[in-house]
Amino acid sequence: MSDALAELKEHLARISDLQTARAVLEWDLQVNMPEGGARARADHVTTLETFTHDLFTSDEIGRLLERLRPLEESLPHDHVDGCLLRVTRRDWEKAKRVPTELAAEITHVTSEAHHAWVAARAASDYPAFRPWLDRILDLKQRYADCFPPGDDPYDVFLDDFEPGMKTAEVRTVFDRLKPELIELAATGRDAPDEPFARGPFARESQHQLSLEVMRAFGADDSSFRLDPAVHPFCTSFSVTDVRLTTRYAEDDLAGHSLFSTMHEAGHGVYEHGVDPTLERSPLGHGCSSALHESQSRLWENVIGRSLPFWRWFYPRMQAAHPDALGDVSLERFHRAVNRVRPGFIRVDADETSYGLHIILRFELEQELLSGRLRTADVPEAWNARMKEYLGVDVRSDALGCLQDVHWSFGGFGYFPTYQLGNVISVQIWERLRADVEDADAMIERGDFSAVHEWLREKLYWLGRRFTPAETIQRVAGGPIDPEPYLAYLRDKSASLAAA
Amino acid sequence: MSDALAELKEHLARISDLQTARAVLEWDLQVNMPEGGARARADHVTTLETFTHDLFTSDEIGRLLERLRPLEESLPHDHVDGCLLRVTRRDWEKAKRVPTELAAEITHVTSEAHHAWVAARAASDYPAFRPWLDRILDLKQRYADCFPPGDDPYDVFLDDFEPGMKTAEVRTVFDRLKPELIELAATGRDAPDEPFARGPFARESQHQLSLEVMRAFGADDSSFRLDPAVHPFCTSFSVTDVRLTTRYAEDDLAGHSLFSTMHEAGHGVYEHGVDPTLERSPLGHGCSSALHESQSRLWENVIGRSLPFWRWFYPRMQAAHPDALGDVSLERFHRAVNRVRPGFIRVDADETSYGLHIILRFELEQELLSGRLRTADVPEAWNARMKEYLGVDVRSDALGCLQDVHWSFGGFGYFPTYQLGNVISVQIWERLRADVEDADAMIERGDFSAVHEWLREKLYWLGRRFTPAETIQRVAGGPIDPEPYLAYLRDKSASLAAA
Repeated sequence: MSDALAELKEHLARISDLQTARAVLEWDLQVNMPEGGARARADHVTTLETFTHDLFTSDEIGRLLERLRPLEESLPHDHVDGCLLRVTRRDWEKAKRVPTELAAEITHVTSEAHHAWVAARAASDYPAFRPWLDRILDLKQRYADCFPPGDDPYDVFLDDFEPGMKTAEVRTVFDRLKPELIELAATGRDAPDEPFARGPFARESQHQLSLEVMRAFGADDSSFRLDPAVHPFCTSFSVTDVRLTTRYAEDDLAGHSLFSTMHEAGHGVYEHGVDPTLERSPLGHGCSSALHESQSRLWENVIGRSLPFWRWFYPRMQAAHPDALGDVSLERFHRAVNRVRPGFIRVDADETSYGLHIILRFELEQELLSGRLRTADVPEAWNARMKEYLGVDVRSDALGCLQDVHWSFGGFGYFPTYQLGNVISVQIWERLRADVEDADAMIERGDFSAVHEWLREKLYWLGRRFTPAETIQRVAGGPIDPEPYLAYLRDKSASLAAA
Repeated sequence: MSDALAELKEHLARISDLQTARAVLEWDLQVNMPEGGARARADHVTTLETFTHDLFTSDEIGRLLERLRPLEESLPHDHVDGCLLRVTRRDWEKAKRVPTELAAEITHVTSEAHHAWVAARAASDYPAFRPWLDRILDLKQRYADCFPPGDDPYDVFLDDFEPGMKTAEVRTVFDRLKPELIELAATGRDAPDEPFARGPFARESQHQLSLEVMRAFGADDSSFRLDPAVHPFCTSFSVTDVRLTTRYAEDDLAGHSLFSTMHEAGHGVYEHGVDPTLERSPLGHGCSSALHESQSRLWENVIGRSLPFWRWFYPRMQAAHPDALGDVSLERFHRAVNRVRPGFIRVDADETSYGLHIILRFELEQELLSGRLRTADVPEAWNARMKEYLGVDVRSDALGCLQDVHWSFGGFGYFPTYQLGNVISVQIWERLRADVEDADAMIERGDFSAVHEWLREKLYWLGRRFTPAETIQRVAGGPIDPEPYLAYLRDKSASLAAA
């Protein structure tokens, strides 16, 4: 039995290496690659996907899993080998349903589509991107057809990012949030612009501030790096090789690289905190997209827009951008980075309107995938809903339906996890604050070690040992619950109005 | 038969993709990777090497080659399918002799050794690197034992970089060069330092100049990028995705990034000029290391240190570095970048003493691999020979035996190809000048298109279609001949002395 386990682990380690190689190629594609590399890169990642999928779905893995079933059933639920077998079996049973040819085609098309999306977004030319979206939707439909019908046709897409989660559960949470968020967001519609929010925020100063904050959050130079990217993201190639990306708006505080950096650093410290003995196994990454987003949003917002944080960091921020912030008080600045103000861009949105950006995408994705919405009608539907939920008139597709990278990589089902992450982040924060009594005082000193350590112990270390539902239960002490999040938004809104 | 050929090509394309993935990981390792990534990266590249080696040496490839032998023998010598089969068969017969386990171990150890070398070089601590060198030498010995004995024990190493070349041929060329180079280099020993050679050369200005020159050489932004690296190199992931690297000394004209950039751009335009229909096949790269070096050294030296080149570029150089060069004439500057002046560092060496750096390494490698030189004695042997050939007293191992990356990646047999490249570059240049009559005048205008086009048509386009010896015959019109190179050095020396 132990021979079979060692053999399985060796197979999984090599499969993990191929997946990591692919991740390096995809990081490079988004961070470095000259445009001339796009065509060949699609071949490279497709070949990696083909080998990985063939190896993982091989009968050999199935036979080993079968031989190891008695071991799996005999181990306590939290024994790491039992976790490994459980997670591997689940992944294997899903992957087994998808023919390698389809997996390869999805990889090839979405790799090529990335550059098409970058170009279409730069030109604000949705019609140029639409044929790619059609092809990707067709492929995703064929992908969905590999699985037995779920309770909801969207379940299969959601499951790729949030294993075990049902569309109905998301809908319940979002139905609770939507009217409240619309009401809260509406309060910000006529708020006047703070002039200092237009900068100037010199790029190099932003970069230095971003490095300082990511290091303070635990993203040290020996294991992390920060690069610019069109669409910021985080990826990791080992627990001590984590890549953050960011972007730099020089004339918009909401697009200051600090916020993207804190967001991606949240993802990064999660990956960095995974038990290193899980590396090169299916357990060696964060648990799910929603849990990942709970960390990116916790560090970006719950911490990164808090008054204690800015008590520590504002003097540095002010010194780095004297022309914009020289005569702006801490309190006024703190209000500005927390103000509710509906806008076009999800990643630059305030915490309240953010959720409405997500609900819009959740709805459109379901309509697109079910065929109720034609791709030709996406801009119109997008813009109408932006008007309805956020009261804004979208002026171009670059500011509208082309703004996000996700559809170009076929990531349908990803968006809802951002908002679930927001919800979970506040649940986790309440538990953390109960355990770490002087968290605020430490943050005011720029000391994030106790916060980091609590999160590492309760969440990061686990990797993918448990299901997302089990993991949320462990770290947040209960199932997903939107109430603490709504209370947090209401409290923030009230305290800022009173200030 | 055509089915078998298509099947073989499909296998080779996928093997090429895995090799490219590995090349991306190795580029990333040298350009981007935080030190924490080293351990895991060694696993990633080892897994890629294992799959690649297993796939390429499989009986399936052997059976296809056997079935295609009648086709190969029936095709004209220069038919591309015949070339493909010939080259693949040769590569396959070599690879087949090496067990996958050994290939994997070499990959793993040399990947880890890279960071050990970087650290040892930074600390000038040869004893810290020596255990790695011992391990690598042991592995390379086991590698050599996979092959039948050649005329010379060094042949097997040389063949990996210069297929078909014998150590005896190299020795004949180097024996002709060595006394002449020692004599020529000695003339520069007491030359006074030009004060402006100490800079300052601001890094950002160097970078802009480097970009300008690489673009002029044909390395356009849509297919190329330039990054800093500890040891400059060039790699390519497709003919339209070529990565150059360089480094920046702010206080030493010999270490100005322009020279590294021109060198790597020479490699890069060679890869960029390969017939794109050869991509994803064993023919889709430059022919051999010596031919590659003939191009890097041609663009760096024969063109990049010529008076016509500087007539065009010196005003830009002067404007970019006004403090150092503001009152330095073109003629004085041109003499400075061509002066013979023995120093410690190979890559910064003048064209004359460069060859002696190589001859030293060629000799030491043979002695190390045969066991005549123990690794403990490398610094002493290195320093003694530097004194004997170049008259310099090596002050530290960082400036001595630790300066080059090659031994850390097991690249024994590579060094001699640099000097063969120098020799070939002058042979090629003479032919080119006979065909492109107004080459000098065009270079004076910063127009390199005709030079580039001639090289592309006669050399780059061929890729690996023919053996190095055949390719040299085609492009240079004869076998390797050191006389034009010696005449070139003597002429340059005389004209600079007269100036």
